[in-house]
Amino acid sequence: MNPKKIAVILAGCGVYDGSEIHEAVATLLAIEKSGVNYQIFAPDINQFHVIDHVTGEVSAETRNVFVESARIARGNIKKLRTFEAKEFDAIVFPGGFGVAKNLCTYAIDGPDNLVNPLVEKAIRDSIELKKPIGALCISPVLLATVLGNITVTIGSNKDTIDAINSLDAKHITTKGSEVIVDTINKIVSTPCYMLDAPISVIFEGAANVINKLIELMD
Amino acid sequence: MNPKKIAVILAGCGVYDGSEIHEAVATLLAIEKSGVNYQIFAPDINQFHVIDHVTGEVSAETRNVFVESARIARGNIKKLRTFEAKEFDAIVFPGGFGVAKNLCTYAIDGPDNLVNPLVEKAIRDSIELKKPIGALCISPVLLATVLGNITVTIGSNKDTIDAINSLDAKHITTKGSEVIVDTINKIVSTPCYMLDAPISVIFEGAANVINKLIELMD
Repeated sequence: MNPKKIAVILAGCGVYDGSEIHEAVATLLAIEKSGVNYQIFAPDINQFHVIDHVTGEVSAETRNVFVESARIARGNIKKLRTFEAKEFDAIVFPGGFGVAKNLCTYAIDGPDNLVNPLVEKAIRDSIELKKPIGALCISPVLLATVLGNITVTIGSNKDTIDAINSLDAKHITTKGSEVIVDTINKIVSTPCYMLDAPISVIFEGAANVINKLIELMD
Repeated sequence: MNPKKIAVILAGCGVYDGSEIHEAVATLLAIEKSGVNYQIFAPDINQFHVIDHVTGEVSAETRNVFVESARIARGNIKKLRTFEAKEFDAIVFPGGFGVAKNLCTYAIDGPDNLVNPLVEKAIRDSIELKKPIGALCISPVLLATVLGNITVTIGSNKDTIDAINSLDAKHITTKGSEVIVDTINKIVSTPCYMLDAPISVIFEGAANVINKLIELMD
């Protein structure tokens, strides 16, 4: 029997303009420890911007989401354009501002935001084939933007909860490494760094998401 | 009683031109899970170069080691110039080519390589004060360049072992997440991605190094 495979979708490399690095690495570790294989994907697009992670200021640079995500992937990465939902048993989105700046525009536009078409297709195809979807940190906002009526958690941030509710999705408040499972849509979410958490809680949250995804796989 | 504190020295963000991301994150997780605090440092210097982690080619960009390391640190980072060995109970170097390109020049110059003066001072001050030093992946080469007669492991790569021997250091071959402890100099090393290892072995190796460092603390 072939081992199960999970697609991990990255959005760059760094919390303020890409994928949150600890969450991304925690996701990879949790998948491998579960005896499941993973393949990393990212869209081949420029980042919305580059943030200097010391000062928090915008830097006068252009970086590509696919190329920067390859840093976390150690080069083992595929373009999101080549993703086929039927080849995977689940799909997972680690968090970081890149999700809300590069994969969709929630960080700039709020609830009325745009979603990258390849990202939207990956989510819709996964739902269509009843594949479970994992969402860490801010990623539930992306899923709510695409899917609307789902149940997720981003922890306890009021503004983000309001945004999720305005997208017709239901939010359940959580803390620490708790996960919320939307059993109808097979969506598993956890707050990670949407809460002020130590790194060990991030790893617990990611592991909890991956374990639930595996339970929900066919 | 104040909790113990370990200084983590980074060299950028990405295996081919900076710190290896999985090793760096594994180091932070292992420290926090041990109930020890950490502070991340990096030198405020330009990287030797920038590598496109998809193609492996040099990219026409300039990036700063301190600024890029801040991505792994989520902005919580100090300049290596401010490091004082007496304020910490141990110091640890995750791996990645940045160690051998930015902290020293081993990747370019081989055994007759130069070491960044702030990095050399951090190592020498730690040795002087009998603070234990951890070294993952290629980092033992940096320590051997500065200190000479020490005992370390980088796994089993013949060229790197030859280089370590030519620096008057002793190499012990290891596999997986094994560590070598030089009890005289309080140096703990493990091969990590110097071997072809899955991510879970990287996390085991980093945890083994941190546990030994804690045993060796005063």
